[in-house]
Amino acid sequence: MALPPLGIPYDDAAIFTDLYQLSMLQSYYREGMEGEAVFTLFFRKLPETRNYMLAAGLDPVLEYLETLHFSGEALAYLESTGRFEAAFLDQLTGFRFTGSVRAVAEGTPVFPHAPILEIAAPIAEAQLIETLLINQITVSTILASKAARVVEAAKGRPVIDFGTRRAHGFDAGNKAARSAYIAGCVSTANVLAGKLYDLPIAGTMAHSYVEAWKDEYEAFRHFVSLYPETVLLIDTYDPIQGVENVIRLSRELGDGFRVRAVRLDSGDLAELSKEVRRRLDAAGLNAVEIVVSGGLDEYRVADLIAADAPINGFGVGTRLTTSSDAAELDIAYKLAAYDGEGRMKLSPLRKNLPGAKQVARVEEDGTAVRDIVCRDTETGFGRPLLETVMIDGERTDAGRRSLDQMRETARTEIARLPAPLRELAPAETPYAVVVSDELTRYTDAIETELSAKT
Amino acid sequence: MALPPLGIPYDDAAIFTDLYQLSMLQSYYREGMEGEAVFTLFFRKLPETRNYMLAAGLDPVLEYLETLHFSGEALAYLESTGRFEAAFLDQLTGFRFTGSVRAVAEGTPVFPHAPILEIAAPIAEAQLIETLLINQITVSTILASKAARVVEAAKGRPVIDFGTRRAHGFDAGNKAARSAYIAGCVSTANVLAGKLYDLPIAGTMAHSYVEAWKDEYEAFRHFVSLYPETVLLIDTYDPIQGVENVIRLSRELGDGFRVRAVRLDSGDLAELSKEVRRRLDAAGLNAVEIVVSGGLDEYRVADLIAADAPINGFGVGTRLTTSSDAAELDIAYKLAAYDGEGRMKLSPLRKNLPGAKQVARVEEDGTAVRDIVCRDTETGFGRPLLETVMIDGERTDAGRRSLDQMRETARTEIARLPAPLRELAPAETPYAVVVSDELTRYTDAIETELSAKT
Repeated sequence: MALPPLGIPYDDAAIFTDLYQLSMLQSYYREGMEGEAVFTLFFRKLPETRNYMLAAGLDPVLEYLETLHFSGEALAYLESTGRFEAAFLDQLTGFRFTGSVRAVAEGTPVFPHAPILEIAAPIAEAQLIETLLINQITVSTILASKAARVVEAAKGRPVIDFGTRRAHGFDAGNKAARSAYIAGCVSTANVLAGKLYDLPIAGTMAHSYVEAWKDEYEAFRHFVSLYPETVLLIDTYDPIQGVENVIRLSRELGDGFRVRAVRLDSGDLAELSKEVRRRLDAAGLNAVEIVVSGGLDEYRVADLIAADAPINGFGVGTRLTTSSDAAELDIAYKLAAYDGEGRMKLSPLRKNLPGAKQVARVEEDGTAVRDIVCRDTETGFGRPLLETVMIDGERTDAGRRSLDQMRETARTEIARLPAPLRELAPAETPYAVVVSDELTRYTDAIETELSAKT
Repeated sequence: MALPPLGIPYDDAAIFTDLYQLSMLQSYYREGMEGEAVFTLFFRKLPETRNYMLAAGLDPVLEYLETLHFSGEALAYLESTGRFEAAFLDQLTGFRFTGSVRAVAEGTPVFPHAPILEIAAPIAEAQLIETLLINQITVSTILASKAARVVEAAKGRPVIDFGTRRAHGFDAGNKAARSAYIAGCVSTANVLAGKLYDLPIAGTMAHSYVEAWKDEYEAFRHFVSLYPETVLLIDTYDPIQGVENVIRLSRELGDGFRVRAVRLDSGDLAELSKEVRRRLDAAGLNAVEIVVSGGLDEYRVADLIAADAPINGFGVGTRLTTSSDAAELDIAYKLAAYDGEGRMKLSPLRKNLPGAKQVARVEEDGTAVRDIVCRDTETGFGRPLLETVMIDGERTDAGRRSLDQMRETARTEIARLPAPLRELAPAETPYAVVVSDELTRYTDAIETELSAKT
């Protein structure tokens, strides 16, 4: 049993949902409520350490919607719970997603309250998918957003995803690699992610390899005999002895020495990289690069670059794949319309914008200055971000972007952000998201109407 | 395609690994290095907001080890990378895990530097599995540890996992439910987790259900006609109006009214729950319980209980399933012996304890007072925590614990911890983990030997 391309096991996906979705579905079926619902996916608040989020995770969602069905095994489980009537389970047998999806392209910077995705579908379909949609957009968006910061900090030097082991589980390990690539990382250590997403993969040796040999020099010599252009990890015992062992190997091998780089994984990376560079250069090994790893994040990468550390590449692990400084995002998926009428919650601080919407990015001199959230029928504000990616359950061309296209979207869209938003420190002035006059009037009207009814 | 019980897709799992593992494997094969390696899995440091970690994730690891193989598709991918020789790929065709595993039971509180798991296997096997082992133990241990705090804070009132949507991806959503149950949560909203792990599932209605109807009263009336003993969500528009609608419904239905509880999901939950309780009681609905949700974590739960809020149960989401205050854990998996000889790293701050080890928990008057890390041949210190869970690739009885057994382990082992460790605040005195004299002497001897060689 192998995973499908986007990592969602099709036969289980339909019940990767909260029980309340199925409870509601059974009621909708019984009551004959088949009207079209519009749901909007958005987040309410940026984490304190983020100036923007980089939208990601749409492709897994579309793959899920295209393949959505209840397997016999899933139906048997639902029946075994005693919570569902036979007639309802029968109806689930033929359940498919027949709706439409509009969404921002993966790799687009997004901001609070602006829709990232909107679903229009019969209410049962639109409701069931909530849990998986939020789950998948959340993990990819959180991890892409973190990766974008690390890539920014590295100022063009390559960043490699080393963090599969520390990600929150199997899917997160794969999605981390995918999201990192969208955000501009050059490769991943994760072999399965390489296979699933056709990503460049990277990785040579661990400390355990060095330790398994009788000494470090023997380890290097044997590894290089198999991989002449490898990267040698030099800090298992002592990084200075390590680089001296590399130099000794270069003398033994002469013209046959083609080692591409050395890696430092601990200690004071700024100081060590300078000393290692000095020793490599003194030995004529100017072409041998230095890559570093070990507890890195965007702040440490920025510090190393500020210290003029002669580092050619960064392997970033735990922080990249957990986004531990901002590991949660309050993505919500709210009913915005049912059967043609606007809908919203009125709970304090939890109100949402009713109706089908669009987001327009307004740019001046090539720089984004604000996003305008408007009704989907409004035009003329700026560049619309929500594209139709699925109609009647089928992907459109806009729903079939390649990972390299998403990566290019991220590169160009991030470059258009105001400079303070690209800094690691919190921007003094948050990016402006404004609601159009027409949507404001519509929201007020719906709110008045609902307040009268409750 | 459905997931196997523990959520690891067998045909992909072998290449859910870092590329360097396979690079090292190819070298080990070529050099004929088939000696037995001992690797130790442990973490170096508690997160600042944790007094202990609750070990979890062993069962998925054992399932993976039992089924480990390279599928034809995985081998074809490896071949396509051009990094591997045909002879090596041939050898991978027959690759299986034939080693032994000793591990602490899931549900055991664990501390820095003490082994959580040790592997003894031919070095290639022990090396390949590192990435998945760390990944799976990490996600389950982080999430079980968080859940244990929430359960502790709730002081016996039920805690339900509501956080699948916010977990980091598909696997994390399922493992969160499993880990939460081990830690003492009573149920999960995640239907697939219910099926995979035979967990109690829970969930009734969302705000969108209420909004889809013409008004809240109609929504309640229709929902209750299908689910008489349900939980009604009362804060879509206004929680006081919401509870009044419940009371109105009770009058309409008379003896047919069997609603079990109302749910509040926003606002000042302490004040609202008191007002809702007062109104329910005044209407004679003393049996109707109040459950709350919405941005809860252990601190908010503790505050609500300290405020004497009349709350009967807590639905906890995002914070439970992301552990966002402590979303990373520096779990390491280090070579401790090769071919019968102790091995260790000497990098500053990264040294590890060599050789096969045991952890003994020393208890006085039923309270754990310290853990002693010793050589695996030592006895007599206290209760040994590492059990043999797999021999020659086959699980032992100790490797076949049920989830309810793990939950009972968590309950009894947490109860034995010193009281300050069970508080939410950081304990002033951390739990003591000491290294036995014999292991200290052995470590010093190995360090001296290695320092001489490098």
